[in-house]
Order: sequence, then structure tokens, then C-alpha cells
Amino acid sequence: MDPSSYDLDPAFPLHLGGKIEVRPTVRVRGADGLALAYTPGVGRVSSAIAADESLADSYTWRSHLVAVVTDGTAVLGLGDLGPTAALPVMEGKALLFKEFGDIDAVPICLATRDIDEIVDTVVRIAPSFGGVNLEDISAPRCFEIERRLQDALDIPVFHDDQHGTAIVVLAAMRNAARLTGRTLGDLRVVVSGAGAAGVAVTQILLEAGIGEIAVADSRGIIHPGRSDLTDVKRRLAERTNREGRTGSLEDALAGADVFVGVSAGTVSERAVASMAKDAFVFALANPEPEVRPEVARQYARVVATGRSDFPNQINNVLAFPGVFRGALSVGARRISEGMKVAAATALADVVGDALHDDHVVPSVFDPMVAPLVASAVAATARLEGLARR
Amino acid sequence: MDPSSYDLDPAFPLHLGGKIEVRPTVRVRGADGLALAYTPGVGRVSSAIAADESLADSYTWRSHLVAVVTDGTAVLGLGDLGPTAALPVMEGKALLFKEFGDIDAVPICLATRDIDEIVDTVVRIAPSFGGVNLEDISAPRCFEIERRLQDALDIPVFHDDQHGTAIVVLAAMRNAARLTGRTLGDLRVVVSGAGAAGVAVTQILLEAGIGEIAVADSRGIIHPGRSDLTDVKRRLAERTNREGRTGSLEDALAGADVFVGVSAGTVSERAVASMAKDAFVFALANPEPEVRPEVARQYARVVATGRSDFPNQINNVLAFPGVFRGALSVGARRISEGMKVAAATALADVVGDALHDDHVVPSVFDPMVAPLVASAVAATARLEGLARR
Repeated sequence: MDPSSYDLDPAFPLHLGGKIEVRPTVRVRGADGLALAYTPGVGRVSSAIAADESLADSYTWRSHLVAVVTDGTAVLGLGDLGPTAALPVMEGKALLFKEFGDIDAVPICLATRDIDEIVDTVVRIAPSFGGVNLEDISAPRCFEIERRLQDALDIPVFHDDQHGTAIVVLAAMRNAARLTGRTLGDLRVVVSGAGAAGVAVTQILLEAGIGEIAVADSRGIIHPGRSDLTDVKRRLAERTNREGRTGSLEDALAGADVFVGVSAGTVSERAVASMAKDAFVFALANPEPEVRPEVARQYARVVATGRSDFPNQINNVLAFPGVFRGALSVGARRISEGMKVAAATALADVVGDALHDDHVVPSVFDPMVAPLVASAVAATARLEGLARR
Repeated sequence: MDPSSYDLDPAFPLHLGGKIEVRPTVRVRGADGLALAYTPGVGRVSSAIAADESLADSYTWRSHLVAVVTDGTAVLGLGDLGPTAALPVMEGKALLFKEFGDIDAVPICLATRDIDEIVDTVVRIAPSFGGVNLEDISAPRCFEIERRLQDALDIPVFHDDQHGTAIVVLAAMRNAARLTGRTLGDLRVVVSGAGAAGVAVTQILLEAGIGEIAVADSRGIIHPGRSDLTDVKRRLAERTNREGRTGSLEDALAGADVFVGVSAGTVSERAVASMAKDAFVFALANPEPEVRPEVARQYARVVATGRSDFPNQINNVLAFPGVFRGALSVGARRISEGMKVAAATALADVVGDALHDDHVVPSVFDPMVAPLVASAVAATARLEGLARR
């Protein structure tokens, strides 16, 4: 991009000076106010927390604060831009956390891409935060980083590129099934992409009782007979594709009920035409969907994309603000699969009677989304014994 | 402290939910706003930064953002409370940064006290920040941590317990000297305490051309003949005490012009009485000064403390907001001794014609302090070739 064009693109002036700030929530008036908010008053609060660490949940901002952590290796669909270039995206995420979930969030962009160093660093800064939102970290590294952080910390650690997408996909699929008089158990699903989103989508669909699911990467359908599988894909092969399919993505689509695209690949019109009656096509690649929605719409009953200029936008902002708000509100030790499924169900239910082919997920601006998702997540955390308060 | 007393102490209700929040500075209205502040608009900004990292200074909040980093080993005067209990203090610091310097600041409380790990962690999170304010890290570890971070990073790294105090002490001393018709070169100074503040005060006084300075720790005057000195104290011994004094702190005070107390110790009335005519007593231990100000006032011309309920409060908030504001405004690569001395001079000058025995430093609420300190720091950074913009 030519620097002289920055002024012509409204994104640049909007970003001048950044998009977020840190503001006091208490007024400090005169010496008396200073003596409460700072020394000596703050010393009494610190001493109380030193004696009972759980008081930090009440007397600091930690209970509503999330670290948005990235190493910049998979920034949006742009790839490995590094930590500094990732900062505007993380600021945007912090902005969305506040606007949609009333959650405070701070970008933490890491000058390392070593898994051990990333894990160590996040563990060391964790006392300052109530939760960790991992963002734009490349697969398969993201899986190990998330798992190790979840093991090391007793606060929510949530890789949004995985689970945010998975929650919204499940919500959309649940509503699309309702619309066509089916249950999740009736559906045969094909997922294109075995990266962060593909793995998490597959996992939540299995958790939610999907009938049959096959995952394809760039080399075709994942099955145990393939010798080129990473550990993550090998586990996918064990848990999916009960019908033992082999071949290409397009082979798998013949007669399938659902296509979920979370890759940068494309799908031919012929393959979409080969799907079953009342099919769902979720073509989520950004900015270019795997198949043009107007093409898919000729064959499929429900078409969703990641874009705001088409109906049924599968946007993570429908999930992460409410998920963290719910988890933090009860001091959840982690975000379980059950909590994610509950989030998806609550999100699907927001649509209610307004359900139709072009409205299987709520608008991102529906003000009921985050409160209802939060409430379902909090209730599930309590039920599962994961709530600290 | 008995938990039932929390409600009776106004510091606790003030701290409920913490004292700071992260807020958007741009309004996101509808899908169009979202498409600029987040994807796809933000992606164009990230791509531009990936091509030219210096653009992050313009298009992110980093250029006005400081990490307030602690390990909780020396919280206020309370000692080693750990990182979680330190969080309210760091939030208070962030609040002061915003209120007094219009600088955004984020608390980072570290779950490690290993020097290597602290340095590594701060280096790794540095891409997110424009500066690092080290806080409440115990001596002598704080010296090595600061030095190594300064070597590793090309953004300002400033241990406020050292340099904030030093700047305000120098400002007060400069004004007290002016009040009594002397220059800094005329003064013989005794510093009690060789921790973070003592070392930094000594260093800035030497930089500013003080006449003679002796430092005492709990075992008496520091001189090269002592066999119990740490590396830091040995370097102090080489640079101070030109007159070769030995003995106790009180021995050193006989005939001295200035006492600077930055320890938890006490000084007897007799020792204060033994000082030279027109002496200055800066008894900065908190909450109990080394000598009661009303006692010191009987013998000394100028008496200062760290407390808000006596005249001449030596409070770091007079320094750090302006210092960081000035340094960040020009993208300074570090905060040099010259920049600190310039900050002290500017701070002293704020007092102007209002100078008298009980007013050698401005009020912390004087709105001219931070802008004038910032301006002097920025100008000096430019002069010294340390400014990036």
C-alpha cells in the first residue's frame, strides 16, 4: 500500500493514536482522594489481599480484565505479520470486548514465537489478569499453547479463533436444523480446513451430538490411513469420518447436508450442487468465501459467510464478549466444552421466532446477545462446579 | 486487618471493582464502523505497519502507553507482598499516569522474582508498549533489572522508586539552595539509605554537581575500606565521600548542609541539631519520617517529607507523569541522566516567585507541573539525539 493513500482510506485516520485508552473509574479529588486511591489507603487494600488473595477479585480490576495475547503469526487472514503489526487488531479486539461485553481487555503482543517462551510469559503476567484470550496464533502451535496455559492457570484461557468461531457455527447449525425440521444428529457435515477453526468446530459439533462429520485439509479427507497427519490431525482422524471416506473435499460433499469452510480454499459450484436437499453452506473464509454466496444460494437452503455484507454473518463477536463476561462473572476456573455448547445454544435462542433462511444467527448489534450468552455460560460454570463465586 | 473493618475504611469501597478501565476512543457505529475499526479495515493498517514498523507510533496506542511492571517484592513501604497484592498499587499508578500526565498505563504484575525471567518477560511483551515503568521491585535486584532492560529495549525503561524520587529531591534541593543563596556545589549532603532511592538520589546529585555527598546504610557511612559492600555500594563508595569519612550516619551529619532520608531508620534530634546553619532535612521515610518534621523544623531551614499532611511533599507524582509524557511525545529511546536533571530543573522552576521555606516544590495538584516537566524532558531528548520523532 502506497503511504500516500493512507489519507484516502478512512481506516487510517480512524486509527490515529490508537483506538483505546485506560481511564480511572474513580475520581481522585485533592489530597484526601489521593490518600485513598494511592498511598497510604491503597496499602491497606494491598495488605488485605496479601492476607487473602481472593480479595483481589473484589478490590482490583482483574475480575473483569482479559489479556488479548498474540504472537502475530496468523493475523486475520493476512498471515505472519509479527507482533507489532498485530497490535491494531488486538486493540480492535479490546474495543469489541468493551463495546459488546463490558469487559476490559489489554493487548499483549509477544516478541517471541517459541511455544515454551509464550507459555512462560503468559503464566508470568497472569496475576494481573482475570482471563486470557489467545488471538491470531498459527496452527498447530495454537493448540499446544492453549492446552499448556489451561493446565498451568486456573483462569479462563480461550483461543478465540478456535472456540469463538466454533460457538457461532454451532449456533447457526442448530438454528438451520430447526428451520428444516431436523436435529444435529440427522446431519452429515463436511468441514474444510483443519487449522485452528476447523479443529475447534469439529470438536464442538462432536460434543453437541452431530451425526457424522468428515474433515478435509488441502490434501483431502482426513482418515487414519493417511501417513502425512500431524498429531492434531491424527486425533481428528480417530474421532471423525465414521463412514471411512477417502478422497477429495468435493468427493465428501456429494450428498452431504452441511459444508463448513474455514480454509482459504475454494469449492466448485458443481460440488455445492451435489449436496443433499436443504443443505447448509457456511463459507467462512475471509474476505473471499470458499464459494460465492449468490452461487451457493441456488442449491443450498441456508448460506452463511464471515462477511457483514451478506446475510447470516458468522462473526466471533457474537460469542467472545458474552463468553468471557459469563465466565468472569462467576470466577470460572476455565471455559469447558459444556460452557461453549451452552453459549451456542443461548446464541441460537436469541433468534427465536425471527428464524428464517437468511437469519439463523442474530445480528452482531443485537443487544441481547452478550447478556444471554453470559448468563448461559455462568449458569453452566456453576452447574459444572467450575465457578469460584 | 479484620475483614469486618473493610467497610469502615473508605479505601475499600473506593477500590471495589478496581480503579481503572479500558475504553474505546473511537465510536463504532454499525457495520461500517466495525468494518473500519476491525476487519477488514484494521487489516490494511496492520499490513502498513508490517511494511514499516514506525507506523505503529501513529496508528496504535503504543506511543502513549506505559507498562507498570512489578514483581511485588517491595510494595510501598510494606515489603514483599507478592504480585497479586501489588495490583491495587499498580492500578493506582495507572490512575495517576492518566490523571496527571494523560498517559495510558497498564499494570503488569509478574509471578516471578527471578531476574532473568523478569527481564525476559518484559522484553517479550515490549512490542505492545511505548515505555516501561518499573515499580516496587526490591534492591539490589532492581538495579540489574533496569540496566538489562535498558540495554535490551529501545524504549524508555524507568524505575520510578529510583528516579522519580531522585528528580523530586533534586528539584527541592535546587530550590532550597536558591532560597538560601547557595548553589548545589556549596552543599555537603548526607544520604541515609543505599536502596533504590538512595542510589538514584546520589547519582542525580552527582550528575547535577553537588559539592560533597556521603551515603550511609544501616552499618554507617559507605567508604572503600568496608568489606561488607555489595557491588552497587562499592561503586557508590568510589564515587562519593571524597572527604573519606567513616563512622555512623549521625557522625556524618555533624556540620552537614543536607540530610536526605530514604530509609526506614530514624535520626535523633541531637544529630539534626548538629547540622550546619540553614540546613535542609528531607525525611522521606513513609509513613513515619526519619525525624518528626516539627522537631526538625527547630534546627533546619527547610524540612520536607513524603507526606501530604506536611509542607514540601516529595511525591513521585511530581515527576513520572511528565517524564514519560515528554519522553513518549518524541519517541525517546531512553531516559538519560540529562533528561532527569532537566525534569528536576523544570519542576523546581514551577515554584518560581512563590519560593519560601515551606514551598520548595510545587503542589502535586499544580496543573503546570506535568506539561513543563514533559516539555523539558522532550527538549533534552532532542538535544541529546535520543528522540525518534
